[in-house]
Formats: sequence, structure tokens, C-alpha cells
Amino acid sequence: MASEIPSSRALPPTRKRATTLKDIARVTELSVSTVSRALANNASIPESTRQRVIEVAEKLNYRPNAQARALRKSRTDTIGVIIPDIQNPYFSSLAAAIQTVARQVGVSTILSNSEENPEILSQTLDIMDDQRLDGIIVVPHIQSKEKVVELSSRGVPIVLVDRSFEETSIPSVTSDPVPGMTQAFDLLCAAEVQLGYLAGPQDTSTGRQRLDTFEKLCITRDITGSSVYYGGYRQASGYEGTKILLQQGASAIIAGDSMMTIGALHAIHELNLKIGKEIQLIGFDNNPTFRLQNPPLTIIDQHVQEMGKIAFDILQKLIDGEKAQESVLLPTSLEIHGSTAVSLKAFEKNRKASKKRNKEKEAG
Amino acid sequence: MASEIPSSRALPPTRKRATTLKDIARVTELSVSTVSRALANNASIPESTRQRVIEVAEKLNYRPNAQARALRKSRTDTIGVIIPDIQNPYFSSLAAAIQTVARQVGVSTILSNSEENPEILSQTLDIMDDQRLDGIIVVPHIQSKEKVVELSSRGVPIVLVDRSFEETSIPSVTSDPVPGMTQAFDLLCAAEVQLGYLAGPQDTSTGRQRLDTFEKLCITRDITGSSVYYGGYRQASGYEGTKILLQQGASAIIAGDSMMTIGALHAIHELNLKIGKEIQLIGFDNNPTFRLQNPPLTIIDQHVQEMGKIAFDILQKLIDGEKAQESVLLPTSLEIHGSTAVSLKAFEKNRKASKKRNKEKEAG
Repeated sequence: MASEIPSSRALPPTRKRATTLKDIARVTELSVSTVSRALANNASIPESTRQRVIEVAEKLNYRPNAQARALRKSRTDTIGVIIPDIQNPYFSSLAAAIQTVARQVGVSTILSNSEENPEILSQTLDIMDDQRLDGIIVVPHIQSKEKVVELSSRGVPIVLVDRSFEETSIPSVTSDPVPGMTQAFDLLCAAEVQLGYLAGPQDTSTGRQRLDTFEKLCITRDITGSSVYYGGYRQASGYEGTKILLQQGASAIIAGDSMMTIGALHAIHELNLKIGKEIQLIGFDNNPTFRLQNPPLTIIDQHVQEMGKIAFDILQKLIDGEKAQESVLLPTSLEIHGSTAVSLKAFEKNRKASKKRNKEKEAG
Repeated sequence: MASEIPSSRALPPTRKRATTLKDIARVTELSVSTVSRALANNASIPESTRQRVIEVAEKLNYRPNAQARALRKSRTDTIGVIIPDIQNPYFSSLAAAIQTVARQVGVSTILSNSEENPEILSQTLDIMDDQRLDGIIVVPHIQSKEKVVELSSRGVPIVLVDRSFEETSIPSVTSDPVPGMTQAFDLLCAAEVQLGYLAGPQDTSTGRQRLDTFEKLCITRDITGSSVYYGGYRQASGYEGTKILLQQGASAIIAGDSMMTIGALHAIHELNLKIGKEIQLIGFDNNPTFRLQNPPLTIIDQHVQEMGKIAFDILQKLIDGEKAQESVLLPTSLEIHGSTAVSLKAFEKNRKASKKRNKEKEAG
């Protein structure tokens, strides 16, 4: 459906009230829910009904955007949050962070675990749409792009978090892997190491961007002999990948997410390698149990609390009919602990030497 | 409202159709949702309306039970699951386990995190009731008992999981701490240790039952000098409690749940005590990261996968209008690893000595 801005002449001059789903329902003599589903191309609606709804919507200059939605009075003060894996501590922290800020302003949160399954994700979006939630924050799957775009263009306030879609204007909050991974390279490559990277799934924006960052850093720094394991955001994948990277001679491993970090720890423990000595390890995400390792893990922090807060703030603006900024990119940062002890020693030695050289230069 | 079984004479003899909320709505000229909320004593419904609804419900012999509900045709094939803390790996595993079995039979799951807050929990139960879910699996809070009982008696299929209420007939699936904790005592007390227990919140059935088990085992085994820290299911609580128990001289600590186990690890790491040598530690729950500790943790396993499966099976029976068995008690079990090495050595020595004695007796 074209989302043309309706001519104001079509409406009474003193009352610029936008057309709502209810108006379409009244004219078509269908329920609001049927109209909503018809506009969403829901398979349960017969094609003839859908055509009638679309005709009436066009006649009434129905404007499927956030402003039109905001004019509707009925709020449920409930939002939906969809994460891909409830057992992944990064995503459960993200959901908890959103819920905490939502609760502070009296908004309830309904959660859903899509299990990285686009079918479950689409079904959940339908359920949440049906349940008259005020808006949805979703960690999307690439195969759910069409569904998300359709809901968003129909005026459902939606914010993408952690992952984004290319070539859409749906607001998103994602993390920028570049600062954290650049610092990781600075640290690791101070010592003589062979790099290994546990890459996440390439059908997620985070998986692609982090791998891209790794590869670019290898190229710009002329690093050769590094290896990449193409995995998924699963513990088993990190375990398997670490064993393979070690076989290929890696002496410093960067794990591409929380779950693969747990898997990497598992493999390294099993092989009885001393972390920080025999193997340098950098994990992803600020998981409390990573600090409980002996030695504690050096990690790339995505600042998940802030990510959740910003996503909710954007969603609220959409719900209120305000124009939200298109996307926010949160920089990652490196938090250094004992799991990169050898690299850190070399890094600090280099820094001292470099300082000394600079001083000598100044003096000379 | 009395839930008397209606006389079948009041209904046409050939059609034993039970009264539904819709029937009450028709007679009162209210919406089904208003009727539902009125019967639920929802504060948003004026007292006069509530009285009228109750009168009509009684006149129509409205039978608020699962059978009546099952007779209603409309299923959403969606259930609600309410856990108290999404960042607690035990509860996120429980939610994931339920979702997995539900999905296998085409049922979607909507989650909610009550943050151990009875107000949020009550609100969530209302939202889920409004959203026409087929049923609800909930980890309850003691202060939500009235609300849960009311929903259940009104025919909403509800199953309690992990925690139960006393003196109600609402089906529940809980774990029995006795077998696992008895095995923990057998193991720890084989060596000369001073026991410390990190007890969970006493307003939860799990917190009370586990503390009760600890105290009874101390009494029946004539163990003196043991100490208890009264905490909550929080990491900070386990951290604080462990420091206090250690100050009181504890040399063997049992943590009363997952989060307190993480907190205990944190405190012990900070104090640089060697786990399995200087301090014996038994955690609660089979969290994958507990196996990644060096040494891996001895744990009391609640078999959370099975718990989730059984809860869903019971809920399905309720939804289908079958009579469900009232409650299932799953035995816990001890899984021994390196964090109790000193105790294990003593335990095995004792066992050998006892075997030898028995042999000598037989021979003599």
C-alpha cells in the first residue's frame, strides 16, 4: 500500500484527524483486528476481504505511520520484547535492562524467545500485533525483514536492537565492534601471537560486522597466518571452533559472542591450557561469570544496559508519534583482565619503550 | 463465588453445555473482558458492576473450572510463562525448557519476568488473562497467592512450577531438596568441616524447604556449630553471605540457589581461597558455567528440563479439560566434582574402611 500523505482538503479543515483502523473497520463492517490482519497480509484473511480493506484504506487516505497510531487513544502500557535466545546471558541482560527502564515509567513488558527461528519470530510478531501492545523491541533475524518492515510501515512502533536491517529506515540500536576489537588487536598483537577468531553466524548483522572488523584489522596491520572459524552463537560452536583454531596454531583467540566465549572456556579447560599464559583469550560481553574465571576474562563490552535504555527511549518516542532518530551506534570497549596476561606484559613493555624513545628524541 | 456443581436439570437434558463468560456477557450486556475482570475482582471494575456480574453468574450456574473452559472453542495456541528473574540461569533454562516442549506441539510461548515483585506478577497475570492465552505456567510469589487462586478457580488453566502454595489444589511441579542435600551432607561431613548454608528468601517455598532440610539434617546428624546466612536469590546476597559464613569459621558452604552460588564464587575468588582445598563448596543447579570453574563445582541438580516438561504436560491436560494430578515432586541429586575434593577423599577413605570392617566382620 502506498503511504502517501493525504491531502488535508479531504478532511474537515478544522479537524485534522487522521484515519484509523477503526474508521476502516466501520466502513468495511469488519472488526479492527480483521482490518489490521488484512493490512498485514495475514494468511488467515481471504484475498477478497483484503482487497476490500485496501480499497477502503486508500479511499480514506489511511496513513499507516506512527503519528496516526499515536492519535489512537487506547494504550495498553505494555510493550513486547523479542530476543533470540533466553539462555544467552547477553540477551537476557538486554531484556532485563529494557524491562527495568520500562517499569520506571509504568510500562509492562511481555517477552518472547525466538530461538533464532524466523518462523517463531514471525509468529510472535503476529501474536504481539494482535495483542494490542503499544510497541515492540526486537532482535531481528534476517529472514524476518519483510514481516518487520510491513508491521512498521503499518504504524506499529518497532525498534530493532542488537541487529539491524540494511536499506530500511526502521530505528535501531546496535553496537559498533570497531573500537573494542581495535583495542583487542592493539593488546594481543603487542606479543608474538597467532590470532584465531570465533565468528558468529553470517546471517546476522552482528556476525557479519564483527568478522568484517576482524578481517579489516588483519589487512590494515599486515597480520598473516590468522584463522577464522565460522560458527553460530552457541556454546557448542565456540567449543568446536576453539579446538580447531588451536589445532591450526592459534595462540590468541577472540570469541565473537557470549555463548562462544563459554564454549571456548570449556575447550581450553578440557585441554588443560593455562589461560593468560599458554593461550590468550578475549571474550565478548560483560557476563558476571566471566569475571569469576581464574584468571578473569578480558572482554569486549557492548554496554548492554545502555543499549536497552536507548532502545526503550526510541520506542517511547515512536509510540508518542514523535519522529525518532534512525539509528544509534554504541561503541564497544575493551576491559582488560588476566586472560591476556602475556599480551598485556608485552603491550606495557612496548609502551614503556616507546615512551623512552620519545623522550630520547625530545632530549636529542 | 461458590463453585458449586450445577444441577444438570437446569440445563436442557440433551445438551449439557456449560455456562461461559460469553453467556454472562450477553445477559449483563457487558463485554466478555469486563465480565472476566469483574469475576477477577479487578479494581478497574465498579463494585455495582461486579455485583451484577456475580448475580448473573450464579443464576446461570457459571462453573468456573477447567472443564467449562475447555468447552470454549477458541484456542490461541499460546501459553504464558512467568519467571521471577530472567538473568537467573536456572529460571531462563526453565522457561526455555517449557518453550521447547510447547513448540513441539505447535504451541507458542509468551514470557514474563516478574522481578520477584508481587505487583508486577499480579499485573502480568491480568495481562495474560486479558490476552486470551490458553493457560499459564508461573513461578509464583507468596503475595500473589490470592490472585493465582482466583484465576485458577475462574477456570484459567494454571500450573505452578518451582514453587507451590500450601493449602491450595493448584497443580504444581517442584523439586524435593531432601535427596540432593542429604547426599551433600554425606559427602561434606565425611571430613572435619564446619558447615555454612546460604539460605534463600523465606517468603518462597523453595527457600523455606531447603533451609528446613538443612536444619533437619543438622539435627538428625548431631551437627553443631553450623551457621546459616539468610539471604535472597541474588548474586550480591551470595557474595555477602559467603564472607560472613567464612568469618564465622565455615569451611564447607552449600549455596541455596544458582545466583547465590555465583556470588559465593565471587567472594571466594576475591579472598583467594583454593576451592576444593581450603574451602569445600556445593552449588545449586546445573548451570553450564559451574562446570567451567577450576575446579568444576559439585552441584545439587534440580533437573530443570524435566521440571519444564512435566509442567507443560500438566498444563495441556488442564487446557483439554482433563483432571490433572495435583502436584509432582521431582527429587534433586548431587553431582560431584572438584570443588569438594577434600571431602570426597575423606568420604572414599571412610567407605573403604567401612568395607574393610564389614569384610573382617564376615571373616571373623
